[in-house]
Amino acid sequence: MQTADLEGFFAPIETLDPDSYLLLDYALECRGNPREALAHFCSEQSTAQWRRVGVEEDLRGEFGAKVVDFRVEARLDAFSYGITAPGQGEIHACSVTMAHPHRNFGTRIPNLLSAVCGEGTFFSPGIPVVKLLDIRFPDTYLKGFEGPQFGVPGLRERLNADGRPIFFGVIKPNIGLSSDAMAALALEGWLGGLDFAKDDEMLCDTHWCPLDERSRRLGETAREATRRTGQPKLYLANITDESYRLSELHDLAVANGAGALMINALPTGLSAVRALTRTTQVPLVAHFPMFAALSRLERFGVSTLVLTKLQRLAGFDVIIMPGFGARMFTSDDEVRRNALACLEPMGDLRPSLPVPGGSDWAGTLKSVYDQLGTCDFGFVTGRGVFGHPLGPRAGAMSIRQAWDAIRAEVPLQVFARDHLELAHALSAFGQPADPSESD
Amino acid sequence: MQTADLEGFFAPIETLDPDSYLLLDYALECRGNPREALAHFCSEQSTAQWRRVGVEEDLRGEFGAKVVDFRVEARLDAFSYGITAPGQGEIHACSVTMAHPHRNFGTRIPNLLSAVCGEGTFFSPGIPVVKLLDIRFPDTYLKGFEGPQFGVPGLRERLNADGRPIFFGVIKPNIGLSSDAMAALALEGWLGGLDFAKDDEMLCDTHWCPLDERSRRLGETAREATRRTGQPKLYLANITDESYRLSELHDLAVANGAGALMINALPTGLSAVRALTRTTQVPLVAHFPMFAALSRLERFGVSTLVLTKLQRLAGFDVIIMPGFGARMFTSDDEVRRNALACLEPMGDLRPSLPVPGGSDWAGTLKSVYDQLGTCDFGFVTGRGVFGHPLGPRAGAMSIRQAWDAIRAEVPLQVFARDHLELAHALSAFGQPADPSESD
Repeated sequence: MQTADLEGFFAPIETLDPDSYLLLDYALECRGNPREALAHFCSEQSTAQWRRVGVEEDLRGEFGAKVVDFRVEARLDAFSYGITAPGQGEIHACSVTMAHPHRNFGTRIPNLLSAVCGEGTFFSPGIPVVKLLDIRFPDTYLKGFEGPQFGVPGLRERLNADGRPIFFGVIKPNIGLSSDAMAALALEGWLGGLDFAKDDEMLCDTHWCPLDERSRRLGETAREATRRTGQPKLYLANITDESYRLSELHDLAVANGAGALMINALPTGLSAVRALTRTTQVPLVAHFPMFAALSRLERFGVSTLVLTKLQRLAGFDVIIMPGFGARMFTSDDEVRRNALACLEPMGDLRPSLPVPGGSDWAGTLKSVYDQLGTCDFGFVTGRGVFGHPLGPRAGAMSIRQAWDAIRAEVPLQVFARDHLELAHALSAFGQPADPSESD
Repeated sequence: MQTADLEGFFAPIETLDPDSYLLLDYALECRGNPREALAHFCSEQSTAQWRRVGVEEDLRGEFGAKVVDFRVEARLDAFSYGITAPGQGEIHACSVTMAHPHRNFGTRIPNLLSAVCGEGTFFSPGIPVVKLLDIRFPDTYLKGFEGPQFGVPGLRERLNADGRPIFFGVIKPNIGLSSDAMAALALEGWLGGLDFAKDDEMLCDTHWCPLDERSRRLGETAREATRRTGQPKLYLANITDESYRLSELHDLAVANGAGALMINALPTGLSAVRALTRTTQVPLVAHFPMFAALSRLERFGVSTLVLTKLQRLAGFDVIIMPGFGARMFTSDDEVRRNALACLEPMGDLRPSLPVPGGSDWAGTLKSVYDQLGTCDFGFVTGRGVFGHPLGPRAGAMSIRQAWDAIRAEVPLQVFARDHLELAHALSAFGQPADPSESD
């Protein structure tokens, strides 16, 4: 690229129509002159060769991505993570904000992904190390998406649950049980206080536990639990499957009584989920397999914040995400930011319910609540309910007792004196988490 | 986990029914006793809590993943990549082969992905650093997949092209041209010797270049080029879009004359592609956006080999992949292995055509051919055809001349004396690549 050519990939942000561009934050490491590397980065993501041979034209004005801000953060002795790249010149760590014209791809999730974290992003000359940190959409762009069909308000209405977290329990053992065994466990969980009894993200429509039979048994049992408790109780069925089966499995599970449906977002494809939002009769719940492989490294890949925003864009009503505690290899800041991204204003899209999941039990509820500073979240337990020494009903009761203790502003150990189930949870699973100690 | 419990997650391979298990190779870094960490790794990927409270049962026999082989490779002072994990104990780098019972998920790609590179893989206690390196399927499992509908033989038959690579050209500029301008460029490329003129992976069905109009113009022009050259010439349309539009866009583009269709595999979802293979009338071509974000790190993520195998499993007839040369940040060995994975026996699945793509031009053809040791590959150029100083016809001719030189066993520089287009390519794009120098 000639020096004069570089300038076509830089623009002061105030010269650009804000409705026409997405804003993208990247951290990257480049070899050679940073301005030149960043111009290539924009070029590879958009127009590449921006004129035909022998034709006087410049496609960059309308179609080129542009650097609107950048900072050289540090000079490095080598690229991070043992990554190498050819060429000469010094290596710098930079942060950059790019304006990417969405006319290049429109309101299509697969094409958006291809543009902002595709070949152009990860194969730009001299930039082998790059992470997409954040993405910001103008409201005009967001209008092209349907978003969550129920969102937090729709979910609370269905559950008749206000002013408190929503309580999910993953039926355990997660693989290998019959529908009858699962229904028996779920019933106990619901009677103890769960809102949702849910399938594990790895359980699907297998011959040893077919979704038809499972959703019928669990649907019936949810109705029984609703009747006995006077509270809406919902079965969350995992319908993750080949994308062409989602609509059929939606119809089957919902007809059988499933109250919400879970889909593993990235393995199934965000687009397949977006398709389902257009007709779904129940809230859709995202799970996070594969995301860690994209997001765990500090300066490489795609951030969980971006992945969270994309799931809300795709229309998930509930987003299960890696939660608090060092066990989940995710910083508290990152979890908080992701939860916020579910709830904060985003065009006209409804808020999604964030569900930060880890090895949670009654003793971690207060720290999750304190970290988030809102009760608009889902609290999901597995062993904390279904591994409770007195069984899942007591396990679910211990969670609700923990919430009652929080509302009463009584320490858990004190509250446990009069609450057997909580006391047993404390002895079985350890001491309450102290937010100041985690991460 | 109790010490006695660990043993349920280890098994000599000869004690397992080979038809019932996938074999998975992982590199990982764990804290504490490696056997214990590996037992957790199997547990998290499969049964987790493998018995109900108060019930005498053990679900691991039928449903548990099992370590069939492992080696402790090294003791480390810290986890790689700046990743941290809680706990005490020494850190070791290990390699492990695991047998994973496919009855847990069946022949469903999203559920396969969730099992082998999902939450269980990346959130196993004490194992924050892990890479899925390889996956091997028993033939009985592969019978559940349709695979490529055309494969290499079907593609060669459509192109009437035997005993040579297939020549692809990415029409450049890739973003921003009208359909007419693209058709004019493609015609030149075809007349010069391209088999396929193709859309860039970022070009989609936009209002400024709608797929209907584009495929009509390019389809007509492909027929014209076929007539004028007496050789089949195909337009490869990128139909990457929301998954629910793929079938409609397939019908539209094929009716208009597209001879093959490209889909960005991961952004769109492998499953959506698998759906399309069941009805497609033309070969399907995969492109690789997002794969680098999963695969670039040596010991973290998911390997390109696994991603290649999954694309063949999903039914892609052609797999465009990061190619040779340091510009693509991919080792020669890795590219060769991926190309081989497209072609080697894999149950009854047809072979896919590997297309290793980088900054290729006439001068890199010999090194690609030498590296692969077969002419069953696609050679894809962008600037090498459409940036040729004499225009795309000359650009495509320079590629075919390079192939003629290879067949005649004449050095390119010598062949170029009587071949103007090749000579211009050599002066414009540099010297022929020497395989011994790359990577």
